[in-house]
Amino acid sequence: MKKLINKVDSIVDEMLDGMTAAYPQYVKRLEGLNVLVRAKGATPKVALVSGGGSGHEPSHGGFVGRGMLDGAVAGEVFTSPTPDQVYEAVKAVNGGKGVLLVIKNYTGDVMNFEMAEEMAADEGITVEHVIVADDVAVENSTWTTGRRGIAGTVLVHKIAGACAESGAELSEVKRVAEKVIANVRSMGMAVNACTVPAAGKPSFELAGDEVEIGIGIHGEPGTHREKISDVNNIADKLLEKIFAEGIYAKGDEVAVLVNGMGGTPLMELLVANKHVKAVVEGRGLKVAKTIVGNYMTSLDMEGFSVTLLKLDDELKKYLDAPADTPAFVQF
Amino acid sequence: MKKLINKVDSIVDEMLDGMTAAYPQYVKRLEGLNVLVRAKGATPKVALVSGGGSGHEPSHGGFVGRGMLDGAVAGEVFTSPTPDQVYEAVKAVNGGKGVLLVIKNYTGDVMNFEMAEEMAADEGITVEHVIVADDVAVENSTWTTGRRGIAGTVLVHKIAGACAESGAELSEVKRVAEKVIANVRSMGMAVNACTVPAAGKPSFELAGDEVEIGIGIHGEPGTHREKISDVNNIADKLLEKIFAEGIYAKGDEVAVLVNGMGGTPLMELLVANKHVKAVVEGRGLKVAKTIVGNYMTSLDMEGFSVTLLKLDDELKKYLDAPADTPAFVQF
Repeated sequence: MKKLINKVDSIVDEMLDGMTAAYPQYVKRLEGLNVLVRAKGATPKVALVSGGGSGHEPSHGGFVGRGMLDGAVAGEVFTSPTPDQVYEAVKAVNGGKGVLLVIKNYTGDVMNFEMAEEMAADEGITVEHVIVADDVAVENSTWTTGRRGIAGTVLVHKIAGACAESGAELSEVKRVAEKVIANVRSMGMAVNACTVPAAGKPSFELAGDEVEIGIGIHGEPGTHREKISDVNNIADKLLEKIFAEGIYAKGDEVAVLVNGMGGTPLMELLVANKHVKAVVEGRGLKVAKTIVGNYMTSLDMEGFSVTLLKLDDELKKYLDAPADTPAFVQF
Repeated sequence: MKKLINKVDSIVDEMLDGMTAAYPQYVKRLEGLNVLVRAKGATPKVALVSGGGSGHEPSHGGFVGRGMLDGAVAGEVFTSPTPDQVYEAVKAVNGGKGVLLVIKNYTGDVMNFEMAEEMAADEGITVEHVIVADDVAVENSTWTTGRRGIAGTVLVHKIAGACAESGAELSEVKRVAEKVIANVRSMGMAVNACTVPAAGKPSFELAGDEVEIGIGIHGEPGTHREKISDVNNIADKLLEKIFAEGIYAKGDEVAVLVNGMGGTPLMELLVANKHVKAVVEGRGLKVAKTIVGNYMTSLDMEGFSVTLLKLDDELKKYLDAPADTPAFVQF
């Protein structure tokens, strides 16, 4: 294993300190905790908290800032954060209007975030949660009951975050987050597996001419392996499964996220995006906004995912609203 | 070779179309050319044009937009753009106040950009150029006479771009660009080599426990190979050589860029940044701004570079000025 790290045990700790060292204008770390919150502290609005295992950077700490998250909780690599850490995040960001937890659908995450919600409720803090399960690849997985939450989660952060920033009540922010969740679908693939530092070797081995389709963001298996082909052909397969959901129709406006898995050069993501846009437009939809880059990664995995979000005027307004975070800035 | 591409011959073409497909609000492509310019066309200010071989995405097309570049010219992978393409870029962005070319110091780039400058001068367009040579690793290289231009170039785009946006004259923008160049130094390393698509195999082979120190951004050799060690130790070596330049002293304010080579996870860059900041501050300097991420890449190379820029009030003002481009946005 060749990684740019010091000790395996201290990666998450050093990563979080590296984030606050880089972006003190955006984030600060709660002392003794793996929690990043806005540098300026709690604000009198509905607060958003997300998080999960580490290894998905810039998710989720990179999205803490104006117009997106108020707090992000980092577990160990690919490991759910503990309930007490989530609870501390909730307490720190609560500005009196309640807190919305944005949870990716993994069994451990759901359990621990819900426990934190109960702990906070016992303290009189109003907390609600939404669960993102945008990955159409598999219906259940080694890590989940139901579908997995992957890159579409970033669009929940963006849109629900803008809604919260606008001064909306908790019920309204939750409604908007759930609307995103109902309209967002993703699917990914891998050219090469990731190496979990503590394991020291790739999560799986692909042959020199093989790719894995329907991969998750933890190196967990996809739907199948196949011979590598043109990226256009690969993107077609991902999009076909997304369109099979039946929620994207001719005339719809969509947002597109072409997400890198961490080790994929931007050049390749851009090549993929050319075709993704052509296919989406070829089906009679309009691409209102595109985001290309590393947003929900899987350590050093090489591969990408495609996310489509059907927009209405409300979602579009919040998607286009300003955001100012380490990893996503928009005027 | 497993890459997310279609045909090797069409990568640059599809990458550029993928960029305009993603960011039509920022960039448009000059018809039949590998040139991206601002979507809104030429503006009545000094225009900045940069570029070079492709494979360094988001450089340079990703920095076309308000507060940074006006045009970016893309050669084939790791190949200088031809003079006629640079010339067309200059013509397209010229708003009447002249054009500054920002050239990375590679023999081919310097020759072709200077030829374009002459062609434009023949047409009555005032063009000046600056040459970035920030890489302290080697004094001459297989690709250059003198030092190579690497990630520090992005800071030239940012600061000279903000100066141009402020309405400054060409001589002033050039002076500011040269001040950045005089005060910026970088050095990089690689954990794994990149694979040039047309070659189909890695540019060099490193053993499973080896890294290359002082690497360039084209897979060209560094200063030496050594056994991989803690990233803190590696960062120390890069910083030591940068500090040996003698231009950064106690009490100075600096900007830090921890740049990924394309295949390096953000988690690892953040771990590196924690130490970089500690070392810089340990020497009595103040880190006024940090940027961490993939800005000047080398295809799928895994590794990183560290850049320091000594700031004065003028450079700081322009560094902090707003920017709105596909790959760098700042309020």
